[in-house]
Amino acid sequence: MTKILKDEDLVGSHLMAVAIDALETAFRARAGKRLISPPRHHVSFPDRGDLVFTVGGILGEKPLAGFRVYETFEGAEHSQIVAVWSADDARLKGIVLGERLGNLRTGAIGGLAIRHLSPPDARTIGILGSGAQARTQLAAAAAVRNLDRARVYSRDEKNRAAFASEMQNALGLDIEPAGSAQEAVAEADIVICATTSQTAVIHARDLKPGVHINTVGPKTRDGHELGLDIAAAAAVIATDSPEQARAYASPFFLAGSSSEHRMADLADIIAGKAAGRGSSEEITLFCSVGLAGTEVVVASAILDMMAVPS
Amino acid sequence: MTKILKDEDLVGSHLMAVAIDALETAFRARAGKRLISPPRHHVSFPDRGDLVFTVGGILGEKPLAGFRVYETFEGAEHSQIVAVWSADDARLKGIVLGERLGNLRTGAIGGLAIRHLSPPDARTIGILGSGAQARTQLAAAAAVRNLDRARVYSRDEKNRAAFASEMQNALGLDIEPAGSAQEAVAEADIVICATTSQTAVIHARDLKPGVHINTVGPKTRDGHELGLDIAAAAAVIATDSPEQARAYASPFFLAGSSSEHRMADLADIIAGKAAGRGSSEEITLFCSVGLAGTEVVVASAILDMMAVPS
Repeated sequence: MTKILKDEDLVGSHLMAVAIDALETAFRARAGKRLISPPRHHVSFPDRGDLVFTVGGILGEKPLAGFRVYETFEGAEHSQIVAVWSADDARLKGIVLGERLGNLRTGAIGGLAIRHLSPPDARTIGILGSGAQARTQLAAAAAVRNLDRARVYSRDEKNRAAFASEMQNALGLDIEPAGSAQEAVAEADIVICATTSQTAVIHARDLKPGVHINTVGPKTRDGHELGLDIAAAAAVIATDSPEQARAYASPFFLAGSSSEHRMADLADIIAGKAAGRGSSEEITLFCSVGLAGTEVVVASAILDMMAVPS
Repeated sequence: MTKILKDEDLVGSHLMAVAIDALETAFRARAGKRLISPPRHHVSFPDRGDLVFTVGGILGEKPLAGFRVYETFEGAEHSQIVAVWSADDARLKGIVLGERLGNLRTGAIGGLAIRHLSPPDARTIGILGSGAQARTQLAAAAAVRNLDRARVYSRDEKNRAAFASEMQNALGLDIEPAGSAQEAVAEADIVICATTSQTAVIHARDLKPGVHINTVGPKTRDGHELGLDIAAAAAVIATDSPEQARAYASPFFLAGSSSEHRMADLADIIAGKAAGRGSSEEITLFCSVGLAGTEVVVASAILDMMAVPS
């Protein structure tokens, strides 16, 4: 029987750890050229929108294959579909519907970067933004580091207060709203940038030595929430997909800067093929673009874990 | 709630009529350039096989969009996925899993051709082949014509006897096994060719004037079950997708023959844009190639009809 999971099935604090471990396997496969992750495929329905397909899979002993599809039609409700096959016996392992899997995946990519780039003894985290991505990035950080304090800043005071009380409750972590972006990041060992700000809200002078910074979502040359001086100050700049970062319709925010050609592939850092953090004083920067195909790997791990009556 | 249908939900003799009517709408949309039906999209998993996506949709007042995906991995079990959205409000109408929908769709395309090309008073049908396609083609013919007699031939005597008794039971139709292909088609007003024979088993001399012939699946120049003289004798040669017929890796069986450029699009015949049957004496030939995207339209109609608790 094909398992079918919906958003209401994707609950529980253990899911993030499962997702991060699944992605660790996927990124190691990527470093070994065994991750299948072709470019997105769009089909247009004139005047309506597109169906967008991303395919993913891992070759090797227990090969996986699958896809995610989402649409860009106008509507209040949007349901993604992720399906996974075991590619050695053509068995459809299951289908995951809804929006949670995608958020979990994006959070988990951030968690994987924090696992491999942030100081192992990081205790303090600063968060810029208070939306869904900020929540999953914080949950991912808490899954890989023994955090004891967080500060959150977003422009709307109510939002940052709500974020602090909700996430304190969810993660059992001391979280306080900060009065400014600078205050949120001043003492942070890890910084999460999850705003939609088109102007720089922090600069290198605002940060501690040794800090690791995660950014989420496309940053373009015309709009990015962190100063280019942070990239210049970073000893390591990594991304989950250099090819996707280069393929954005608007140039990636580092394009044309002195940092452009220093972007390393997180997969290579994890596999020891590229240099990661060299000392506790270095600044490291991870720019997440959402490596295509990784939803399939996360869905597969969750389907394996859950025995759901269908 | 997203409806999810599996093979066991796709039962009942009314489904074929629903599928044929849905395809009638789709083919009329195709004639009016409102059917979205781009070429298949393949993604390869080296040494394992492909995921193959076909996308389909209808533009207009109640726009539909969706896709089918299947895999070519090695395995005993193969599960296709078809998903349908209403494209005006981005609502995922449902998902259909399994193999039945594809068979139903292929049968229904044949039924649509029979509705528009065979003599309206056709009573007798001859079937070559006794597999799944032969079954659905016969069921489709019975849904659009008031048949009273069928003859079936396939090389294996046991298979044709089993087919006759099973389908007689299912359709309430007098069905007898025939001793040869010629005997099966000799008195037929409608002929179904659903074998995998690579050599011609019937020729023009075996057929009655006024007969309509349906073929299913790819016929190539190197392998086809009906003689080229039948195409030459036919007043009308139609297909559900001239572009797909031309795109086969092996040349279509009519390529290079005098009949090659007489292939009409069934959609145009249905819409009155191309000539169909002109008299009760004419031979008509329909070569089904399985117009991509039509599974979505059939799935949509079935999902609309069925109220399934999820």
